[in-house]
Amino acid sequence: MKSYKGYLIDLDGTMYRGTEPIPEAGSFVRKLASKGIPYLFVTNNSSATPADVAKKLQSMDVPCKESHVLTTSLSAATYLSNRPVKQSAYVIGENGLRKAIETAGIVEEQENPGFVVIGMDRSVTYQKLANACLAVRNGAHFVSTNADVALPSERGFLPGNGALTSVISISTGTEPVFIGKPETIMIEQAVEMLGLKPEETVVVGDNYDTDIKAGINAGLDTIHVGTGVTLTEELDEKPIAPTYAISSLCEWDM
Amino acid sequence: MKSYKGYLIDLDGTMYRGTEPIPEAGSFVRKLASKGIPYLFVTNNSSATPADVAKKLQSMDVPCKESHVLTTSLSAATYLSNRPVKQSAYVIGENGLRKAIETAGIVEEQENPGFVVIGMDRSVTYQKLANACLAVRNGAHFVSTNADVALPSERGFLPGNGALTSVISISTGTEPVFIGKPETIMIEQAVEMLGLKPEETVVVGDNYDTDIKAGINAGLDTIHVGTGVTLTEELDEKPIAPTYAISSLCEWDM
Repeated sequence: MKSYKGYLIDLDGTMYRGTEPIPEAGSFVRKLASKGIPYLFVTNNSSATPADVAKKLQSMDVPCKESHVLTTSLSAATYLSNRPVKQSAYVIGENGLRKAIETAGIVEEQENPGFVVIGMDRSVTYQKLANACLAVRNGAHFVSTNADVALPSERGFLPGNGALTSVISISTGTEPVFIGKPETIMIEQAVEMLGLKPEETVVVGDNYDTDIKAGINAGLDTIHVGTGVTLTEELDEKPIAPTYAISSLCEWDM
Repeated sequence: MKSYKGYLIDLDGTMYRGTEPIPEAGSFVRKLASKGIPYLFVTNNSSATPADVAKKLQSMDVPCKESHVLTTSLSAATYLSNRPVKQSAYVIGENGLRKAIETAGIVEEQENPGFVVIGMDRSVTYQKLANACLAVRNGAHFVSTNADVALPSERGFLPGNGALTSVISISTGTEPVFIGKPETIMIEQAVEMLGLKPEETVVVGDNYDTDIKAGINAGLDTIHVGTGVTLTEELDEKPIAPTYAISSLCEWDM
């Protein structure tokens, strides 16, 4: 096992399952902390703020400050800030996205915004989607926090942000820039935030199609953990294997 | 020019443009009526009831009774009635669809419906889309009135029912049965309603990708009229030409 200088860690399926902690997650992260190895939690969840995530992990005895969290919303706001485009956005999304956009100094604007940004929004309406379509047809840069099509809930799988995004992309014929995993934008930002090189950093996650693919796409090594979406035995069918596959985080020696 | 025993006529771009009548439309339909040639207006508009459509055409001096109108909503309700599936539906749609479903004796049901039916709904919400996804994942037959991705409005192109439908199809991985043009279901029902054979009936419309394709797909002759979406000169690029192409309905001798 290679010794990595930084860890990018997924949340759901890796640190917890829904509201249920994964017991070995806490000792894994505490070990990183005690060895002084930097880590970031990188999540496709655009609804939660870093404070929400930190609070949830702390309640599960996983050491986490706000500064340890990179959500797709935070990453999207940084992406917008770095573009030479009018710094205003029509936003469809929840608290995590709105706060991130506001904190980045990007103004919300409906009529003629520089960007349309969409994240998960359980209060989405036809009017919001129509406003977004008009702005994209009018030339706004179209950004979506992530392409996840389904969201697990107690009721079953509900539409995810990727499914909501499709209304705008299909209606306008314009594909968005997706920020989250498996795309590379959030991962590249995370590596930069740690001040490391891609080859010094490793992605840890349970979902092959988001976590592991994002690592592979961004040129990072990857650790697949079999506690979530993708079962360890399903990895054999994948075109590119993760660098390591473990059944539980307690198997990992850092 | 062949003498047809029945006409299936499109509305927007053929009889009127938005709220503006196309002057030659009235005399075209009055000629059909005076010669005793049966006709039906077949429309992808799922929001209007046949009474709404008849009233609008009458106001433009186009002879039309409710019985002359086949909307995708009416056609969808007939399609559902003829399926050996539990006669209940979770409905996303406006007045035209709700009335058609109710009139066909199909009960609205959220939890475990036989069908999920979606038509244009300018009051669509995340909750409605979530309920539809759960029902489709639970085995409900998935039906959509039409695949139009954009809807012209005074503000510009707004998302059409095809774009709303994509939330459910992309999230669940289940493609719907589309009822309207360019699919054949509504056209086949219209031919049957007239009591004619496909080769005795002709489709008249302005939109190659919906009207003309629907006629071609259902094995009917087609008349393209250059008063709407598809310009006459664009027909040269199409793989299959309409049977006839005219610039205005006044050119047609029946």
